[in-house]
Amino acid sequence: MAVQHDVVWQNFAVTSSDRAKLLRQAPFVLWFTGLSGAGKTTLANLVAKRLHDLRYHAYVLDGDNLRQGLNRDLGFTVADRQENVRRMAEVASLIHDSGLIALAACISPFATEREFARSLLPPGRFVEVFVDAPLELCEQRDNKGLYRRARAGEIADFTGIDSPFERPANPELVMDTGRLTPAECTDAIMEYLVEKDLVVADWTRTRQ
Amino acid sequence: MAVQHDVVWQNFAVTSSDRAKLLRQAPFVLWFTGLSGAGKTTLANLVAKRLHDLRYHAYVLDGDNLRQGLNRDLGFTVADRQENVRRMAEVASLIHDSGLIALAACISPFATEREFARSLLPPGRFVEVFVDAPLELCEQRDNKGLYRRARAGEIADFTGIDSPFERPANPELVMDTGRLTPAECTDAIMEYLVEKDLVVADWTRTRQ
Repeated sequence: MAVQHDVVWQNFAVTSSDRAKLLRQAPFVLWFTGLSGAGKTTLANLVAKRLHDLRYHAYVLDGDNLRQGLNRDLGFTVADRQENVRRMAEVASLIHDSGLIALAACISPFATEREFARSLLPPGRFVEVFVDAPLELCEQRDNKGLYRRARAGEIADFTGIDSPFERPANPELVMDTGRLTPAECTDAIMEYLVEKDLVVADWTRTRQ
Repeated sequence: MAVQHDVVWQNFAVTSSDRAKLLRQAPFVLWFTGLSGAGKTTLANLVAKRLHDLRYHAYVLDGDNLRQGLNRDLGFTVADRQENVRRMAEVASLIHDSGLIALAACISPFATEREFARSLLPPGRFVEVFVDAPLELCEQRDNKGLYRRARAGEIADFTGIDSPFERPANPELVMDTGRLTPAECTDAIMEYLVEKDLVVADWTRTRQ
């Protein structure tokens, strides 16, 4: 690394709270973690739609999509996975700072990076959703055909096969997509958000 | 880099255009490029305030601030500067996709990375603002004390001193902050945005 320049923090006239006020919402981050095929993207998509229909301003950060842009320089080694999740966490924090609700869907297999993501947000504004489907089920679904290829040795460092997944110790929510339908999970997540006052289930919002 | 997994692009129920519609704006990226001390952050800040007062939803991405988060692993070598700007470009594109207006303030010394940033946006949605102050003036201002340290050899790879700045060939706007005040530059930028229909100078927006 080069000699460090002194980097000065810049403050701005419009604050995070000004932006949130103009958007008429108090932003937060929903972080979906779990194995490939567990249903993270499916749930992020459905919750984002539900929020949008309630006229909340939200944005989905999807691990696969980020790997085609911001994270395209990263592979799947442990170090690269850590960096992948670090960047996702930093971008989720920027999205939150912008005033939008961020929905991050990424495997995020290690507890350390998930805790880092949480540490960037104010208390209570980070909701970890453990999308918990058994490996056998994810492998059976294999909607991207990746498990088959990992088992065949065509893909290395695949989470659940030859790269570890550390189960979250204290997630805000656990969604067992083996037992609940996507719609049921979405209902449960929305109920949690209302219960915690992160979302106001106010039908008048939809009228504006 | 590890063996590449097949990364599948995920599509979502709520589109970029849905988000923009809910925000009642058509987003774009304002990209401020120029030497350290030229006034990029000052102008981004003032334009963001003006947009906010008109009830537009915007977010400033500042190079210095990103270097304390997303880009904290990067130094100031040519390769690191390129990566710094690449990430800024990718995040500006995400912010635009989220429906927000992005104001990116970063030196972005090389034409290639600025063109890359432009290439991520639809035609007409990328506005390059060359904040053009003479090196002597920037050095005289030296508001962060960095030029003095660069001249003293305490900082290496400093743009304008021992690292190059490629002047933009065809920027949408050139702001000479040596001749115009920050308020005059802000007026000129807002006039351009109205002229190009990127912003509607409609007083009724402020009433909602």
